[in-house]
Amino acid sequence: MEILKQLLVWRRDVRHFRTDAVPEALVEDLLDLVQLAPSVGNSQPWRFVRVESAGARATVRASFEACNEEALAGYEGDRARLYAGLKLAGLDRAPLQFAVFCDGATAQGHGLGRGTIPDTLDWSVVGAIHVLWLAARAQGLGLGWVSILDPQAVTAALDVPAGWRLVAYLCLGWPAEEHATPELERRGWQGRTGAGRTVLVR
Amino acid sequence: MEILKQLLVWRRDVRHFRTDAVPEALVEDLLDLVQLAPSVGNSQPWRFVRVESAGARATVRASFEACNEEALAGYEGDRARLYAGLKLAGLDRAPLQFAVFCDGATAQGHGLGRGTIPDTLDWSVVGAIHVLWLAARAQGLGLGWVSILDPQAVTAALDVPAGWRLVAYLCLGWPAEEHATPELERRGWQGRTGAGRTVLVR
Repeated sequence: MEILKQLLVWRRDVRHFRTDAVPEALVEDLLDLVQLAPSVGNSQPWRFVRVESAGARATVRASFEACNEEALAGYEGDRARLYAGLKLAGLDRAPLQFAVFCDGATAQGHGLGRGTIPDTLDWSVVGAIHVLWLAARAQGLGLGWVSILDPQAVTAALDVPAGWRLVAYLCLGWPAEEHATPELERRGWQGRTGAGRTVLVR
Repeated sequence: MEILKQLLVWRRDVRHFRTDAVPEALVEDLLDLVQLAPSVGNSQPWRFVRVESAGARATVRASFEACNEEALAGYEGDRARLYAGLKLAGLDRAPLQFAVFCDGATAQGHGLGRGTIPDTLDWSVVGAIHVLWLAARAQGLGLGWVSILDPQAVTAALDVPAGWRLVAYLCLGWPAEEHATPELERRGWQGRTGAGRTVLVR
């Protein structure tokens, strides 16, 4: 558990990347590991789109910039100034970028386990992303999850099969810096608290 | 990465538990580790309820049994016979049971990163559960995620603060068996496939 703890402490949402390439064999290994993630009914609904073309990347970046400006407009005063100074995506430099979808139309798993809580299918994709995050970190790579995007716009730009829902847009590459504390904490936006550590007993 | 791979290969959704207790110090260590999970805007929205009372456990079990019967009614022929033979929860024997919620009312994180995809708050709870899953496994413990439940009924029975949404009901304890392949695969319900390994390039 000590090794896992080190990995968890060092896992960061990375937004500052070096631009040098990631070896293809390493990318393949990471995607192999992802297949071991848990999924509801063993449905394995994660679908990866590797975004390489300049056109697709530009669309994603434009969506991020528009949504980020809109988000900024929702803050005031010091909080707005703080927000404006945050770097919230590594889209400018990350050598690898993946859009990760949930295949809402998959028959795999035969619907088991998701009758009363259908979101469990999307949640299976989140588990897969977390595996990728840890596996990348174990190899010294950094991953950044970009959620400030219009999912419709990104989905349309990537021309994916019907029924795929965007869960995450990921930047992957070698981190430019190493930190044991979250960037949002270092920049004064939000530190960790004990709110989620209190356990109610019933 | 080799150690992480072993952990991922051995991680199972466990439904067969021994009934002997889990040391309290170990439970505390696991919950400490969970706090290192990633979360949108560093919101840490996971909330744990430890379900100990016979009354609350009986309500959860009744909800599982009703929902599981309903699910069974949706299958026919061989598939129904197969479903009826599956053990889909360890509620009968798991010494530790946790309901895990997302605090939809939390101000932590100041809303950052979830303007366009509000589900990212729930997804942060899923990441925390995955950390618990791996950490438990690293200690030889097994975790089983029960999703065949009526979330309204379980939430009402546990008397939690307003705004909390049920994400998962977890059984935790020492596994009665060790397996490197999923139980759903061993029982012929659903094996792993390569559907999620194919990467589209755009």
